[in-house]
Amino acid sequence: MSAVRIGLVGAGRIGAAHARTLVERVHGAELVAVADPRPGAADALAVPLGARGETSPEAILSADDVDAVVVAASSTSHSVLVVAAAEAGKHVFCEKPAGMSLAEIDAARDATSAAGVVFQVGFNRRFARDFRAARDAIVDGAIGSVRMLRSLTRDPGDGPADPGAVPEWTIFTQTLIHDFDTLNWFNPGARAVDVVATADALVAPDFKAAGLLDSAVVVIRYDNGAIATAEASFAAAYGYDVRGEVLGSAGMVTAGDGASSSMRLHDASGRLARTSHSDVALLADAYAAEFHEFVDAVREGRTPAVTGDDARAAFAVAEACIASVQSGARAAVHPSDAVV
Amino acid sequence: MSAVRIGLVGAGRIGAAHARTLVERVHGAELVAVADPRPGAADALAVPLGARGETSPEAILSADDVDAVVVAASSTSHSVLVVAAAEAGKHVFCEKPAGMSLAEIDAARDATSAAGVVFQVGFNRRFARDFRAARDAIVDGAIGSVRMLRSLTRDPGDGPADPGAVPEWTIFTQTLIHDFDTLNWFNPGARAVDVVATADALVAPDFKAAGLLDSAVVVIRYDNGAIATAEASFAAAYGYDVRGEVLGSAGMVTAGDGASSSMRLHDASGRLARTSHSDVALLADAYAAEFHEFVDAVREGRTPAVTGDDARAAFAVAEACIASVQSGARAAVHPSDAVV
Amino acid sequence: MSAVRIGLVGAGRIGAAHARTLVERVHGAELVAVADPRPGAADALAVPLGARGETSPEAILSADDVDAVVVAASSTSHSVLVVAAAEAGKHVFCEKPAGMSLAEIDAARDATSAAGVVFQVGFNRRFARDFRAARDAIVDGAIGSVRMLRSLTRDPGDGPADPGAVPEWTIFTQTLIHDFDTLNWFNPGARAVDVVATADALVAPDFKAAGLLDSAVVVIRYDNGAIATAEASFAAAYGYDVRGEVLGSAGMVTAGDGASSSMRLHDASGRLARTSHSDVALLADAYAAEFHEFVDAVREGRTPAVTGDDARAAFAVAEACIASVQSGARAAVHPSDAVV
Amino acid sequence: MSAVRIGLVGAGRIGAAHARTLVERVHGAELVAVADPRPGAADALAVPLGARGETSPEAILSADDVDAVVVAASSTSHSVLVVAAAEAGKHVFCEKPAGMSLAEIDAARDATSAAGVVFQVGFNRRFARDFRAARDAIVDGAIGSVRMLRSLTRDPGDGPADPGAVPEWTIFTQTLIHDFDTLNWFNPGARAVDVVATADALVAPDFKAAGLLDSAVVVIRYDNGAIATAEASFAAAYGYDVRGEVLGSAGMVTAGDGASSSMRLHDASGRLARTSHSDVALLADAYAAEFHEFVDAVREGRTPAVTGDDARAAFAVAEACIASVQSGARAAVHPSDAVV
Repeated sequence: MSAVRIGLVGAGRIGAAHARTLVERVHGAELVAVADPRPGAADALAVPLGARGETSPEAILSADDVDAVVVAASSTSHSVLVVAAAEAGKHVFCEKPAGMSLAEIDAARDATSAAGVVFQVGFNRRFARDFRAARDAIVDGAIGSVRMLRSLTRDPGDGPADPGAVPEWTIFTQTLIHDFDTLNWFNPGARAVDVVATADALVAPDFKAAGLLDSAVVVIRYDNGAIATAEASFAAAYGYDVRGEVLGSAGMVTAGDGASSSMRLHDASGRLARTSHSDVALLADAYAAEFHEFVDAVREGRTPAVTGDDARAAFAVAEACIASVQSGARAAVHPSDAVV
Repeated sequence: MSAVRIGLVGAGRIGAAHARTLVERVHGAELVAVADPRPGAADALAVPLGARGETSPEAILSADDVDAVVVAASSTSHSVLVVAAAEAGKHVFCEKPAGMSLAEIDAARDATSAAGVVFQVGFNRRFARDFRAARDAIVDGAIGSVRMLRSLTRDPGDGPADPGAVPEWTIFTQTLIHDFDTLNWFNPGARAVDVVATADALVAPDFKAAGLLDSAVVVIRYDNGAIATAEASFAAAYGYDVRGEVLGSAGMVTAGDGASSSMRLHDASGRLARTSHSDVALLADAYAAEFHEFVDAVREGRTPAVTGDDARAAFAVAEACIASVQSGARAAVHPSDAVV
Repeated sequence: MSAVRIGLVGAGRIGAAHARTLVERVHGAELVAVADPRPGAADALAVPLGARGETSPEAILSADDVDAVVVAASSTSHSVLVVAAAEAGKHVFCEKPAGMSLAEIDAARDATSAAGVVFQVGFNRRFARDFRAARDAIVDGAIGSVRMLRSLTRDPGDGPADPGAVPEWTIFTQTLIHDFDTLNWFNPGARAVDVVATADALVAPDFKAAGLLDSAVVVIRYDNGAIATAEASFAAAYGYDVRGEVLGSAGMVTAGDGASSSMRLHDASGRLARTSHSDVALLADAYAAEFHEFVDAVREGRTPAVTGDDARAAFAVAEACIASVQSGARAAVHPSDAVV
Repeated sequence: MSAVRIGLVGAGRIGAAHARTLVERVHGAELVAVADPRPGAADALAVPLGARGETSPEAILSADDVDAVVVAASSTSHSVLVVAAAEAGKHVFCEKPAGMSLAEIDAARDATSAAGVVFQVGFNRRFARDFRAARDAIVDGAIGSVRMLRSLTRDPGDGPADPGAVPEWTIFTQTLIHDFDTLNWFNPGARAVDVVATADALVAPDFKAAGLLDSAVVVIRYDNGAIATAEASFAAAYGYDVRGEVLGSAGMVTAGDGASSSMRLHDASGRLARTSHSDVALLADAYAAEFHEFVDAVREGRTPAVTGDDARAAFAVAEACIASVQSGARAAVHPSDAVV
C-alpha cells in the first residue's frame, strides 16, 4: 500500500515534534513538505527529514504530491486552514483546538464533511496507552455506570514568559480542552450539561490584567448525572502531569503516571522516580499512535477515532467555562448540537 | 504519670472502635466507663474491656473517676455533650462535627475554653502518617507556596440503607468536613473565602427526595489565592479511599494509598494490591495517634493539635456548601471569626 | 484478665525499643523490670517507663512479680538465659538467634518444653502486615505450589564501626537468620536440604581479616524442589530494606516496601518516596504484633506462632552457610531433626 | 541518507516480530527480503510487509540489494550465518546467543571483525528505557561503587510443550544469557570470575530426564568483589517479568515493571495493574531501539552498543553455569580473553 504523503503546516515546537514523529515512527506516512512563514523555519525542519520547505500553507494545499495536511499552525488559523485543505481535497489532521469558537469548529467540521475527507483532531490522550486501557475498561463495564470523573493537565515550568503571545482564554481553549475531551470520552454517550469554572493567575499574577489565567478548576455536570472535575495549572515544577480517574458504580479506573520510566533511584533521601518534563517525551507513544490512526483512516477511507463532533463537544465546554468565569456563575454548555 | 481516665459516650460503630483503640493502643489512657442509651449496648462494649457500662451520659459526666470524655454519640448531641462535659470540668475529645451549626460549635468551643479543659475534635487525617508527612513538607517549604489543593473521601459500600437515619446534609457536615479540615490544614494561615458545591444522589437516586446527597464536588477559594477541590462519594466499590494533594510553586505532595499492605499478589489477571474496605482498618494508626495526642494534651495541660477553631473553620465551609447547593451559586464562607 | 508481667533482660538498642513497644503498644503486657549489667543502663530505661532497673538477669529470673522474660541481651547469652528462665518457670520471648549453635538452640527449646512454658523467638517479619498477607496468600493456594523464593535484608549505614564487637558469622546467624526463617515459613511443610553461600567484606574490606563478612548471597534447595535465594548487606545507603518474594505455579506474591509512608514529594528531580532508615521504625507494627502474640500465647497457654523448632530450622540453614563459606562448596543443612 | 536494506533470516516468532518492528518502527531501515526454509513461511511474512520471501539464507547473503542481515534463525545456526554474512560483506545483527559455544562466538566475532562489518547481538534490555536509565545512573556514580546485583527473567506460560525442540542448556544459553549480559553491563569494567548455579525442572519435572531445566539461580562473583544473582523460570503465570537491581555504596537502582501501562483498575478485590504476557509487548520499545542502534551504527560505520565481546562475556558465564551444574560445584568463568 502506498504511503500517505503529508504536508505539515507549522514548524513551531509541536510542528517540529510532529514532523519527527511522522518521519521516524509512523509507518505508512511520508512527510513531503513543511510550510512556515518565518524565513528559513520550514527548510530547517524539512530538509534534514527529506522533505521540502515552503513559506506559505497555500503551497502545500495546492501541491499534487500531498494527500493529507497536518495543521500545527497557531490556533487562530486552524479553522481557516482546515476549510482550505478540505476544499483542496486534502485529508486533515488538526491540532487542538480545531477553531477559536464553535462557529469556527463547525466550519471546519462541515467543510471536511462536505469534501468527504478525513478530519482528525489532536486529542493525544485518546492514544496514550493508559488512557486507552482506562477507556476500554469503562466501555467493557468493568467499573459499572460512571458517576464521578477527574482529569488534570499540568505543564512544567513557570508559565508563559510573554502573556501577549497567549490568547486570553488559553487555559480553557488550549489546555483544558484536552481534559474536556478526555472526560467526554470517559463518559460514553453522555453530554455535558453545565459547568462552573474557578480560575485565577496564581503562577504569574502580574499577567492577570492581560487576561492570562494560569490555574483553573472546572466542575461539569453531565446529562447522565455524572459529575466531573477538570483541573489545570501552567506551572508544575515536578514535570508534565496528565491524569484521569473515573469512579463508577462497580469500581474505579485511573490513568497517568509522570514517571519517565520504571527505573527507581534509591539514595539517602529515599526512592526516586524521575519524571518527564516534556509533553513530547511523556506522550511520545501517544503522538505516534494518533498519526497511525490518521494514516489508517485515510487509507481505509473511514471516520477516525477523533472527529469534528468530538472537537465541538470539547470546545462547547471550554466556551461555557469562559461564560462561567465572566459571570461568576454556573453556565450552560452550548445547546442543541453539541453532540450531533 | 497516672493514666487519663476516660469515659466514652456512644457505643455505636465508631464508639466501639474508639473504645478498643483506647484500651489496646493508647498508653496513658484508661477506659473506665461507656455510656449508651440502648439497653445493654454499653455493657456489651465496656465489660470485656474492663470498664463499666452506663445508660446515660450524665453518669459519666458526673463520675469522679472520669478525667476526660470521648464523645462518639450521634452528631446532633455533640455540642450539648461537649458543653455539659466542660461544665463538669472534664476534658473532651469530640468526634467530628463538633456541632450541627456554627452556633453549636461556637457553644462547644466557648464552653471548653471558659472551663479551661482540653477540647480536641476528631479530624483523623491529621494523624495519618502520610498526611502528616505531606503537611510537614508543606510547612517546611518543600513545595513552595500553595496554589492548588485536592482532598477526597470515599466510603465503600452502596450508600446508606436507611436515608431517614442520615441527617440531610451529611455529605458536607459528616464526610467532607474531613476534607475541609485537611484542606485548611494543608494551606497554613489561609482562610476559605467562598465555595461552589455540586452535589447529587448518584448512588441512591431514590433517596434524593429525602434530601440525601451521596456524591459531591466542592471548589473552595482561599484568601491566599489557592484553589481547592474536595470530593466525596458514599459508594466506592473498591474500598475506603482518602487522598490529599497539594500543588505548590516548587512541587507537589500527595498522600493516601488505599492498599491494605505492601503485599502484591500477581496472577494471570495482573498485579493486585488489596485495599482496605474499612476506615477503622485504613486509619487504625491515625486513630491511635489522635488519642495519644489527646492524652498528651490533657497530661501536659496544653492546646491539642486540633482545636475548636479548626472545627469551626471546617464547619464554616460545610455551611457555605449547603448554601451553595440551595442557591445553585457560589456562596461566601461564613464571615469574620471563621478563624479567630 | 490480668496483665502478663514482663521482665526484660538487656537494655541495649533493641531492648530499649522492645521496652517502649511493650509499654506503649502492647495491651495486656506490664513491664515490671529491666536488667542490664552496665551501670545505670537498666534504671535509665526502666524508671521513666514505670519499671525498676536491675543489674543482673538473675534478679529478674527469680522475681515473683515476673511472669515472662524478654531476652534481648547479647546473642552469646541467649541460650543460657532461656534455659535459666525456663527453669525458673518463666515464659520466654527470646530475640533471634535463640543460641549460637544448634546445640544451644536445642537446649533452649528442650528446657522450655520440659518446663511447659511458652517460648517464642523474635522473627519479626512473621508479624509484618505485608509478609503475613503474603504467607496467607501462599497458604490459601493463591500462587499454587511454591517454586522459587527470595528474601532480602539490608541495614542502612556503613556497616559496624567495631568489628571486634560483632561475632564472626554475624551475617548468617544474626541477619540472614531472619531470611532463613522467612523462607522456611513461605514454603510450608518443606525443609531446607542444602545451601551454597557466597559472602565477602564489600562494605568494610579491612574487617575481613577479623572474620567480618558484610555481604552475602545464599541459595537454598528445599526437599519439595523449591529453590530460594537469601541476600544481605550491612550497608544500604537508602534505608532499611526487608523484602520477600515467592513464585508459585499459579502466580507470585511480594512483600516489602521501604517507604516510610505513602506520602510522595514531587519536585524538579522527580517523585520521591521517603524511606525508613531504622528497623524499629520500619517494623514498628511488627514488633507490637509479635509481643501481642506472645502475651496471647501466655494467657491462653498455647504454642506461639514462632517456636523453638522454627528457631532451630533457621539456624540449621545458617550453620550450613558457615560450612559452605568455609569449604567453598555446597553444604548440607543439618540432618535429621532440623524440623522435628 | 539512504536506508539500510535488510535481509532477515528466520521467520519464526521472534523473526516475525523483528520484521514488523523493522518495517513499522525503524526509520532508516528497509526490509527487502526474508528467508526461511519452511515452505511458504518467508513469503507469508515478507510479502504483506513489502519484501520478498526466500527459502534459503544464501539467497539473502548473496543479494546485492541487502546491506545488512538480521539473524533470527535457530541458535545452532547463528554462528555459521554470522560468519557467512561477514564473508559476504554484510553487516550483521544476530539474536542472542551469537553461538552455541565460546568457539562459535569467537568465530562470529572474529569473522565480522576481519570483514570490517558491524556486528550487534540482540541483548534487548540494554535498550529498555528503565534498564538504560539504571545503567546511566550507575555510570554517573549515583549509587557509588557496585556491590550486589540481581537480574531476573521469567517467561509466562507453563514451559515448553516439546522438550525435544529445546537445546539442553537453554535456560543458561538462551534465557539467562540476557541476565548475564545485563549484570556485566551494570558492573562496568568488571569481569565475572566464577559462578555457582542451582537449577532444576520445577515447571515440567517429566522433562528433566531429557535435560530440560526450567528454573535456575546463579551466583556470580566479579573481579571487583561484586556479587550478582541471576534467576530464571520458564513459567510465570502472571506475565513476562524482566527485572534488574544494583546495590552500590551510595544507593540502589532498580529496573523492571511488568505492568502493561500505568492504568489501574480498582474493584472489590483491590487495585489491579495489568501485566504484559509477551516479551514482544513488554519490550516493544526496546526492540525498536536496538534496531535503531544497529541502523545508526551501520550508517555511521561505528561499533554498536553491543558487541561480539559482550556476547562472548555473557556466554562465558553461561558456559561456567553448565560446568557448575554438571559438577555441583563452583566453576570458573572461562579464562583470559573473556573480555578482550
